[in-house]
Amino acid sequence: MGEFLKVVKYNEALQKIKEHFPAGQIEDIPLLEAFNRVCAGVVISPEPLPAFDRTTVDGYAVNAEDTFGSSESLPAFLDLVGEIQMGVKADVAIQPGQCCWIPTGGMLPEGSNAAVMVEYTEKLGEDTVLIYRPAGPWENVMQKGEDIADGQEVFLPGKKMRPQDIGLLASLGLTSLKAFKPYNIGILSTGDEIISVEDKPQIGQVRDVNSYALATAVQACGSNPRIYPIVNDQFEDLKKAVTRGLEDNDVLLMSGGSSVGIKDVTIDVLLSYPDSELLFHGIAVKPGKPTLAVRIGKQLVVGLPGHPVSALMMFYIVCAPALRFVPAMEIEAFMSMNLPSQAGRDDFVPVRLVYENDRRIAIPLLGKSGLMSILSQADAYIHIEYEKQGIKQDDMVTAYIF
Amino acid sequence: MGEFLKVVKYNEALQKIKEHFPAGQIEDIPLLEAFNRVCAGVVISPEPLPAFDRTTVDGYAVNAEDTFGSSESLPAFLDLVGEIQMGVKADVAIQPGQCCWIPTGGMLPEGSNAAVMVEYTEKLGEDTVLIYRPAGPWENVMQKGEDIADGQEVFLPGKKMRPQDIGLLASLGLTSLKAFKPYNIGILSTGDEIISVEDKPQIGQVRDVNSYALATAVQACGSNPRIYPIVNDQFEDLKKAVTRGLEDNDVLLMSGGSSVGIKDVTIDVLLSYPDSELLFHGIAVKPGKPTLAVRIGKQLVVGLPGHPVSALMMFYIVCAPALRFVPAMEIEAFMSMNLPSQAGRDDFVPVRLVYENDRRIAIPLLGKSGLMSILSQADAYIHIEYEKQGIKQDDMVTAYIF
Repeated sequence: MGEFLKVVKYNEALQKIKEHFPAGQIEDIPLLEAFNRVCAGVVISPEPLPAFDRTTVDGYAVNAEDTFGSSESLPAFLDLVGEIQMGVKADVAIQPGQCCWIPTGGMLPEGSNAAVMVEYTEKLGEDTVLIYRPAGPWENVMQKGEDIADGQEVFLPGKKMRPQDIGLLASLGLTSLKAFKPYNIGILSTGDEIISVEDKPQIGQVRDVNSYALATAVQACGSNPRIYPIVNDQFEDLKKAVTRGLEDNDVLLMSGGSSVGIKDVTIDVLLSYPDSELLFHGIAVKPGKPTLAVRIGKQLVVGLPGHPVSALMMFYIVCAPALRFVPAMEIEAFMSMNLPSQAGRDDFVPVRLVYENDRRIAIPLLGKSGLMSILSQADAYIHIEYEKQGIKQDDMVTAYIF
Repeated sequence: MGEFLKVVKYNEALQKIKEHFPAGQIEDIPLLEAFNRVCAGVVISPEPLPAFDRTTVDGYAVNAEDTFGSSESLPAFLDLVGEIQMGVKADVAIQPGQCCWIPTGGMLPEGSNAAVMVEYTEKLGEDTVLIYRPAGPWENVMQKGEDIADGQEVFLPGKKMRPQDIGLLASLGLTSLKAFKPYNIGILSTGDEIISVEDKPQIGQVRDVNSYALATAVQACGSNPRIYPIVNDQFEDLKKAVTRGLEDNDVLLMSGGSSVGIKDVTIDVLLSYPDSELLFHGIAVKPGKPTLAVRIGKQLVVGLPGHPVSALMMFYIVCAPALRFVPAMEIEAFMSMNLPSQAGRDDFVPVRLVYENDRRIAIPLLGKSGLMSILSQADAYIHIEYEKQGIKQDDMVTAYIF
């Protein structure tokens, strides 16, 4: 293919990757395995929560109107007609002027619409209760369906499950969840100069950092990485490795060494498959212009830059969204300094976030591109869009925690 | 034990739990399994990164002084004395007035201290290169050890590993990590009225939501939960269950039903072991006052409230810190409204975080305490400290994402 370049804007690249990413499979998983999984359907509540009107205090179930106007000096007198047991259906019904003892969590008896805390009452003999404070309708009561109504939409697709979300589903008696199945993602490092991380590099050799960083990033997106042995830039060897990577996985991520030949050979190999299509070759972004994507049948191969910092950043900005990555947080911050940028290119800049003088500051980590330590110091990255020529000091930016 | 209460402030409770939490074990794990694990030691770099001075551009390695004053109209003339190959030790040394071709990533030859991009040069015949722009010392060079110095402290204990951190360790040739071993945490729901989540509750029965929510929260803290069958409030049954829970695990989390007897029986059972000590019984917090901790030998039992919302909040605020939970983010926000609070109690209030009018707003989710849906709607919680009588609208608060 030689010099053939098909450079696209960041948004187009992202769009093409999303479009050609294999459709996500959906699976039913036990609720106990749902932590950090992403909901794939609309979860509808099968019942109201709570299932009946229940009190939130120990005290007396009353008809609120009977307590109106009551006070310390002029209590309401109510007839005590029974006692609700926890865990038992309320079998008394109260009439105007009556009340009944109810423990926290107890079911409100028919005819009552509020509860008065025992602290604001006094028992007078066996059958009479003095109420010293008025209760509004439904005061100290959690009404049937108040937490979640029957048939309510509880979660929408894309929701990532936290402990409290799993607790909510358990409350509704739901013990499984329709979740997106993790993708299988192959990871293949290429290049004659790439050596295993365990080995001591000779001059000019480079450790295979990408397999580690990308595999972990795939895990961070909730998918399953599979690392393949490093492959050199010989057509036949590379083709064998790509074929295997495609057979085993939904998507193959390659990251190229910086040796002169590898990029061309990679494209030659990828386009040698029937029904293959170069989606783009080059993205107008910093860092990571030399990123490419090829559709092969219904599968996708993304070729990431060889440089570890660029490879990881490009994974985050073009692959993670397709893997349904739910970022921990987006946070607004003020720029600590002017940050120039070239219009006609999307820039992604790692930042540290600090809190100073009552505001959150984003400090760009500039250094020389390519310092892995910089990415490790970063709390987040910011996006300087295609049209912009930079960001001014004190401008607000959105920082994407990663 | 009856009415014996030993109510402590939140800070004391947290302190006691941390103090009596079993010491964390440390294990060596393969780097590829280190995602989201917490570093247990100081990671020291075993070598400099990069290992040699290398260029970040394609161009010519030069002695910077030879280029000073050069311009489009008055280029510097340098003698071309060789070519550096990628992956090969630079075997030429350059003298003043000389230069040599160098590809991106190539090793700087002896005698050179900068690189000039090929775009700002022109080759004149075979042996001469014109330099049109001056290069500062070390321009376009990543110096040996500039990313990470030999012997530098790379990570400190408590650091939670992200893809970029794992990438950095791989760059240094480190293939394993000393990490805190996950704790084994038993989870035991107690109470006659608690039924399995699968079952349809009869009036007064309550689903065992806590086993699901707490097990997931333990996972979120990077530890291993083990759920035990629900146990009733009979002394012998409870003691058998607690004994087994202690045998199998480092720490046992119990959560009590709201039945009258269960709290007393729980304490009786826990204090029936030799060398047991009630650390506290009751914490001056909302929600979750009925929380207790008992040390049994070198183990710890934490009794959480029966109510799922309280149980989960209490887990986050008193157990998660001891489990070395690293929160996703703390974020500052402005209160959307006045929020009164009782002095003499620490309040923890779930909030939604929205971005409006150029600032991050925390909207307290008040509703009736005990709505699981509220915890699920929450992005974070805020802490109103013991001494405070509330927070005013527009006051700044720290929101703990959860």
